[in-house]
Amino acid sequence: MTDAAAATTMSSYATLEARFRRIGALQEAAAILHWDNATTMPPGAAEARAEQLATLRVVSHEALIDPRVADLIDAAETRHGDLDSWRRANLHEMRRRWLHATAVPSDLVEAFSKACSVCEQAWRQARPAGDYAAVLPYLRTVLGLVREVAAAKASRLGVSPYDALLDEYEPDGRAAEIDRLFGELARFLPGLIAAAIDRQALRPRPVAPQGPFPAETQRTLGAGLMERLGFDFAHGRLDVSLHPFCGGTPDDVRITTRYDEDDFSGALMGVLHETGHALYERGLPAAWRRQPVGDARGMAMHESQSLLIEMQACRSREFAGFLAPLLREAFGGSGPAWEADNLYRLNTQVERSLIRVDADEVTYPAHVILRYRLERAMIAGDLALDDLPGAWNDGMRDLVGIVPPDDRLGCLQDIHWYDGAWGYFPTYTMGAMIAAQLFDAAKRSDPSILPSIGRGDFAPLLSWLRANVHGKGSSLSTSELVEQATGRPLDTAIFERHLRARYLGD
Amino acid sequence: MTDAAAATTMSSYATLEARFRRIGALQEAAAILHWDNATTMPPGAAEARAEQLATLRVVSHEALIDPRVADLIDAAETRHGDLDSWRRANLHEMRRRWLHATAVPSDLVEAFSKACSVCEQAWRQARPAGDYAAVLPYLRTVLGLVREVAAAKASRLGVSPYDALLDEYEPDGRAAEIDRLFGELARFLPGLIAAAIDRQALRPRPVAPQGPFPAETQRTLGAGLMERLGFDFAHGRLDVSLHPFCGGTPDDVRITTRYDEDDFSGALMGVLHETGHALYERGLPAAWRRQPVGDARGMAMHESQSLLIEMQACRSREFAGFLAPLLREAFGGSGPAWEADNLYRLNTQVERSLIRVDADEVTYPAHVILRYRLERAMIAGDLALDDLPGAWNDGMRDLVGIVPPDDRLGCLQDIHWYDGAWGYFPTYTMGAMIAAQLFDAAKRSDPSILPSIGRGDFAPLLSWLRANVHGKGSSLSTSELVEQATGRPLDTAIFERHLRARYLGD
Repeated sequence: MTDAAAATTMSSYATLEARFRRIGALQEAAAILHWDNATTMPPGAAEARAEQLATLRVVSHEALIDPRVADLIDAAETRHGDLDSWRRANLHEMRRRWLHATAVPSDLVEAFSKACSVCEQAWRQARPAGDYAAVLPYLRTVLGLVREVAAAKASRLGVSPYDALLDEYEPDGRAAEIDRLFGELARFLPGLIAAAIDRQALRPRPVAPQGPFPAETQRTLGAGLMERLGFDFAHGRLDVSLHPFCGGTPDDVRITTRYDEDDFSGALMGVLHETGHALYERGLPAAWRRQPVGDARGMAMHESQSLLIEMQACRSREFAGFLAPLLREAFGGSGPAWEADNLYRLNTQVERSLIRVDADEVTYPAHVILRYRLERAMIAGDLALDDLPGAWNDGMRDLVGIVPPDDRLGCLQDIHWYDGAWGYFPTYTMGAMIAAQLFDAAKRSDPSILPSIGRGDFAPLLSWLRANVHGKGSSLSTSELVEQATGRPLDTAIFERHLRARYLGD
Repeated sequence: MTDAAAATTMSSYATLEARFRRIGALQEAAAILHWDNATTMPPGAAEARAEQLATLRVVSHEALIDPRVADLIDAAETRHGDLDSWRRANLHEMRRRWLHATAVPSDLVEAFSKACSVCEQAWRQARPAGDYAAVLPYLRTVLGLVREVAAAKASRLGVSPYDALLDEYEPDGRAAEIDRLFGELARFLPGLIAAAIDRQALRPRPVAPQGPFPAETQRTLGAGLMERLGFDFAHGRLDVSLHPFCGGTPDDVRITTRYDEDDFSGALMGVLHETGHALYERGLPAAWRRQPVGDARGMAMHESQSLLIEMQACRSREFAGFLAPLLREAFGGSGPAWEADNLYRLNTQVERSLIRVDADEVTYPAHVILRYRLERAMIAGDLALDDLPGAWNDGMRDLVGIVPPDDRLGCLQDIHWYDGAWGYFPTYTMGAMIAAQLFDAAKRSDPSILPSIGRGDFAPLLSWLRANVHGKGSSLSTSELVEQATGRPLDTAIFERHLRARYLGD
């Protein structure tokens, strides 16, 4: 190619980088405002804040759908071979963002956004009463519009409607692959759940330590553990909110929790979980801040990082051995309830239960498979909304082994569908499988990782994650990332082996 | 006019409103991020935050200098008679914003912004050492660029260079008027200061209550007083920051303070001062949120609101009578130091001192007049920067009656000039004079105001301020606002009368 052509290529690409950097900065501003919303904002500011956030969204969106962006992407792609691999990956992600932003006509976007907002309000009313019929008309509108959105995106992305929805949360995620993986899980899970419950019934029940557990003590303990995990308080915060989350930006990662003075374990495990998300954000490649390729890979990989820390590392017997004396010291506890073995058994109890967010590691995937199958069927038009409660209860019986007494504990429990988040559910269990496979590979690559965790030293684990996951940003697809980090494609056998080892002693 | 012409007018004007609403929302977002910066942000996030804020500034600025805005303003002004008075005033303020935003070439804006940032850093180094020579080259660059900015704005606004700078902080403020008012002040102030000091020397010195005063108790007390003043915690917050300020937005007003456990009076008076600012923001006309006409009128009016609350209302003998028992109860104090008379005398001590921000109500204007005269001379080219320290010290001797031993306590004490804020200083004392005149008018209009303050009831005062000041937004000029609210133009005689009554017993 000529020098002039090279200059044009760089200039198109460089112009795109400048534009996406601006979009990224606006999104960072919005992330801090969202955090403020949930933790700090006085209630009377809600309406003004909604307008500030809507304006940031509109300005970012306009910067993305500007017709010049399409021309610049086309021009840069033409000379794509002149870019190094990170820039190529960045350009690829720019194209994906642009496709998602332009695939849906703006009147449909607006109608969908309004319908979700109205339906979510109706759901907040209907859920406590278990009144599915009350929210049904709103959910019908949402589903109708979701299917239109899915169709519009499908034709632009060249994938199925469900895959088009999934792609927003899990780029390049495909239902065909999830069907295969979840099919394998569904074959062994019911038996494994039964066997784990039988096995734990043969032993004395673990005993919960007795409180009260002052919130301030819980906070100090949680913050201390965050630091051990590698959380840098010069680049982040721990605060309180009604619903725990990890927010903020990679240079300012803000996690939240909620303290129950009668039970420290919820906040403690929640803090460890959110710290896993936070370490991922903080470890994203600094050279690619505010560029698409510098962002986290997707929701499955994000959830894998929280579950790797919470489930793989911090519910291990090794970590319980480290944690027990810390807990005794913090809360002044003593006696059998405070022994490491008891705490480990408390943290690995298995129970058939109705509510996904309270489910343990073994039954959780069953809850997710149910939701995935139902939403697939609804998007495909194979399951009518009138039949959702029945299908839900049938699925719960088959997959989890219990049936909800009402819709409050059934198909009304999760906000996702009512708020328009279709295609999100499978990422939770994809994340759990990826977590198991990454932790397995990390331990094989560095045998000091698990013994170090037993001493409260997470540096070897974090070092492996930084090099193999966090620092990759979105330069690889999720499957490439898993395969490069672990030496093989995502494999349910590794997740199954983890569960069998922990819950059946295999 | 024809209907079609009317439709075009409305459409130009309505288009402008939509655009300024967006700009206003972006500025609100920036205001919350600024607050977060000062109170909450972890230190490692500074660079990313600077980029977020710069991006918000650039996006707002681009929305304002877009050539379509000029056309829309022209078109709307052509049919200006079709707009009601608020819309006309809004259009007038849009034109002012557009003029300020477009008057200075963008390379000059950038050079000025960089020079200020560098000079401010140099000043932070030079100030503790009192090393004016070290910061002088940077200040020379800043002043050179300020004069270019002033010249550029002056030719567009059709005013003098100094007035063009002043106009940013005090719209329509004119040096000729300030010269007249400050000339009157300068004639009586030195004598009044001397007389006040002589008079207080005849009485026993007031005694400061002894601490410690726990920060949490100070906070509870301050928040309680804020509520009495009419601050609504559903629409605002009280937090801690290194430098106290009033930030946030009219629907989410966030003030800050800093607690000294050895002396409660700094934080207490600071909270009352910032609450005055906050009540103004909160009382701005809700129908004009995020429009130029809905904003506070200018820095003089803003300072008048903080000084009205702090100086006029809360340093009054009446308020001391209400406050004394509250303080005794909060801190468990007793004895002569906690009596209302002693507290009142503490709050109205007069002293010739070197530092403006620590100065009392009587000497403060002398500090401001000095700075105003010096910056006028520097902008006009009549005072060279080499001669600033000497001119400062001469002015201190003439106006305040003492001379700084070094430049740390002299011309290096304030950030303003080093950070590029030329034309700001006079607004402090304009604010003090307006505060006296407004409070005087309020008391005459509703004689229950002062006795109510003596009972801790600020409702009558707030009601008058809402109707006569806060609710007017920027629909009137500062002088129109003062004249409508008080029945006469701004008059130093009222300020003098206030000082004579309080400090000389006249």
